[in-house]
Amino acid sequence: MILSIILFYKPTSSSWRTLTFLAGVVLGLSKGGRTIKTRVTELLGIEYPIIQGGMAWIATAELAAAVSEAGGLGIIAAGNAPGDWVRAEIRKARELTTKPVGVNLMLLSPHLEEVLKVVLEEKVPVLTTGAGNPGKYLPVWKEAGIKVIPVVNSVSLAQRLERAGVDAVIGEGMEAGGHIGTETTMVLIPQLADKLEVPVIAAGGIADGRGMAAAMILGAEGVQLGTRFLCAEECQVAPAYKEMVLKAKDRSTVVTGSSTGHPVRVLKNPFAQQFLELEAAGTPPEELDKFGTGRLAAAVRGDVKEGSVMAGQSAALVERIEPVAKIIESLVSECRALLPSSGF
Amino acid sequence: MILSIILFYKPTSSSWRTLTFLAGVVLGLSKGGRTIKTRVTELLGIEYPIIQGGMAWIATAELAAAVSEAGGLGIIAAGNAPGDWVRAEIRKARELTTKPVGVNLMLLSPHLEEVLKVVLEEKVPVLTTGAGNPGKYLPVWKEAGIKVIPVVNSVSLAQRLERAGVDAVIGEGMEAGGHIGTETTMVLIPQLADKLEVPVIAAGGIADGRGMAAAMILGAEGVQLGTRFLCAEECQVAPAYKEMVLKAKDRSTVVTGSSTGHPVRVLKNPFAQQFLELEAAGTPPEELDKFGTGRLAAAVRGDVKEGSVMAGQSAALVERIEPVAKIIESLVSECRALLPSSGF
Repeated sequence: MILSIILFYKPTSSSWRTLTFLAGVVLGLSKGGRTIKTRVTELLGIEYPIIQGGMAWIATAELAAAVSEAGGLGIIAAGNAPGDWVRAEIRKARELTTKPVGVNLMLLSPHLEEVLKVVLEEKVPVLTTGAGNPGKYLPVWKEAGIKVIPVVNSVSLAQRLERAGVDAVIGEGMEAGGHIGTETTMVLIPQLADKLEVPVIAAGGIADGRGMAAAMILGAEGVQLGTRFLCAEECQVAPAYKEMVLKAKDRSTVVTGSSTGHPVRVLKNPFAQQFLELEAAGTPPEELDKFGTGRLAAAVRGDVKEGSVMAGQSAALVERIEPVAKIIESLVSECRALLPSSGF
Repeated sequence: MILSIILFYKPTSSSWRTLTFLAGVVLGLSKGGRTIKTRVTELLGIEYPIIQGGMAWIATAELAAAVSEAGGLGIIAAGNAPGDWVRAEIRKARELTTKPVGVNLMLLSPHLEEVLKVVLEEKVPVLTTGAGNPGKYLPVWKEAGIKVIPVVNSVSLAQRLERAGVDAVIGEGMEAGGHIGTETTMVLIPQLADKLEVPVIAAGGIADGRGMAAAMILGAEGVQLGTRFLCAEECQVAPAYKEMVLKAKDRSTVVTGSSTGHPVRVLKNPFAQQFLELEAAGTPPEELDKFGTGRLAAAVRGDVKEGSVMAGQSAALVERIEPVAKIIESLVSECRALLPSSGF
C-alpha cells in the first residue's frame, strides 16, 4: 500500500524555493521501502527521481529496463538508429519490465521521422531529447499524452521550451559525457530552478549519493546519470569500454570538437589525441566530422583506442561494475543519509 | 562565551565520510549568533568557513578586512605587486580589523622573493597560493607557524602538497573566474574529500547558500567565493566592473588562453573576442601573452571593453551590490536552512 501526501507549493525566490521544496518533499511507503517523492517522481510515476541518461549506442533495452525495474526511469537511446531497431528495443524492454521506459530522441538523426512514428505507435510514455530544439514536435506529443523532457544546457533554451509546453527539463552541466555545453552543473541548476516553473532534473558530474544530494540542494527535483549506469552489469557496452571508465581519474577526459561548434567529452585515447591535433592544425569542420564518424559505435564494440569513448568527468568517481539495482539503492541511501531532514 | 565540542573523526570511505563530517559538525555560541564549526574554522580561528578568493588587483585591504571582520577569512592578493604595496595593504587591513587576514601569493610574481620577506616580517597568519606548486617554501612557512592553503585543480597536485605538509587545500572547479583547470567543482570536491586527510575548501561556481550547502554535501568543510565578493560594497574595483558582473547571465563567460596552456575565465567583451580570434588564427603564445598583459588591471580601473574582466560562471547568480556582512549573513542563513540537521 502506498501512503503519500503531496504538498504542492508555489515557488517564490531562489534558495527559499529549494528549501520549500525540500520541506515539501513527502514520505511514501511502498513494498520496496520508502520512495523519494518530488514533482519528477509524480510526473513520471516512478519511485526514485533517478533517470538514466539516453546514451546513443549504449542505452539499449537491457539497461533501460533494469533502471525502470529498480524504480528509476530507464531510457532507450534512439541515436541514429532506424525505426525498426527502436521498435525492437522498446518491445524487448517491455518483456523485461512492466514499468514505464522512455526513449531519447536525437533530433539530428537521419531516421528521425521514422522513429517519431514508432514512438507514437508504441505509445512510449516519456521522451527525452538532445541535440536541438524539439519545439515543433511538441503539439503532436502533447496530444498523444507523452511527457516531454528536453536536455538543455542554457537558461534561454530552457525558458523557450517551458513556454512551448515541456513537462520538465534536464539541465546538463558541461562535466557530462558526450555532447556538452559550457556551463557547469553547480551554476546551471540553481539558475534553472530560479527561472523555471517546471521541475529541473540535474545531469553532469553526478555519480553517487553526494552528487544526487548536492543537486537536490541546488534546486533539482531529480537527477540523470549516464556514466555510472554505463558501468552497470546490465549495460551491453563492451567490457573494455567499462574498464576504461573504471580506470579514469580526474583529468582523464578531454573535449573534442570545440572548433566545430559541437564539443564532445571523451576519455583520452589515441583517437581523441589525433582529433585534438587535427583541430589544433586548423582542419576544417567537415573533415573533422568525417574523421569522427562511426567512432562511438567502434568504442561501444570494444575499440577503445580508435573509438570515441564518451564519458563524463564523473568517470573518476565510478569504481565498480554493479547491477543497476545496487547502483540505485546506494544512490538513494547515500542521498537520504546526507539529507536526513528532507523527508527522503 | 563560546561553547563548543569538537568531534574529530577518522574518515573512512566516500559518502560516509561526508555524513560523519556533517554529523560531527558542532554548534557553537558566540555573540554574533551561532558559528559554523568545521575543521576549517578551527584551523583558521574564524566563525564561518567562508574564505574570500585572492583575486589579483581586486582583493585589497578594504575587502579582506571586511570579510574577516564579518567572520570569514579575508585575503589580500599580492598578485604581481611589489613587497611595499603588500606591506601597506596588510597594515591597512589591520587598522580595519583585529581579526586574522591572509595573503594570496602568486607564485609567478616577479616580486615573489620580496613579498615572501614581507609576509614573514608582518607575521601573516595564513597564506593561500595560486599559479604553481608552493612545495619548496613550505619548510620556512611551517617553521614560522603560518597556515598554508594552496589552490589546486587536480587530485595529484593536492596529494603531493598534502604530503609536503599543507594545512588544507582549496579545490577550485573550472567554473571559477581567472586562471582555471579543467575539472568542475561537482566532480573535483568529492574526489579530493575521498583522497585527502586535510580539509578541503570548495571554490568555483559558489555564490549563494545553495552552492555553499551543496559544496558541504560534496565533502568540503569550507567554501571560497571570489565573484560574489567582487560585488561587495567594500570591494574597490571600478563600478563598471561590478555592473558587468551583475548583468552577466549563463554563457556570459568565455575561456581565453586555452591555446597557451594558461586558460583564464573572463566575461565576454571586445578584448575577449579579439583574444579568441587571435588564438583561432594560431597566434603564438608569447604574442598572446603580450596582448593580454595589463588587461586585468585595466578592467579593475574601469576599462571593461579593452580590459580582461575576470569572473566566474557564478556571475549569473550575483544580483546585487551589498556590504560584505550582508553577503556572509545570507550565505550562512541559506546554508543552515538547507542543511537543518547538520548542526549549522
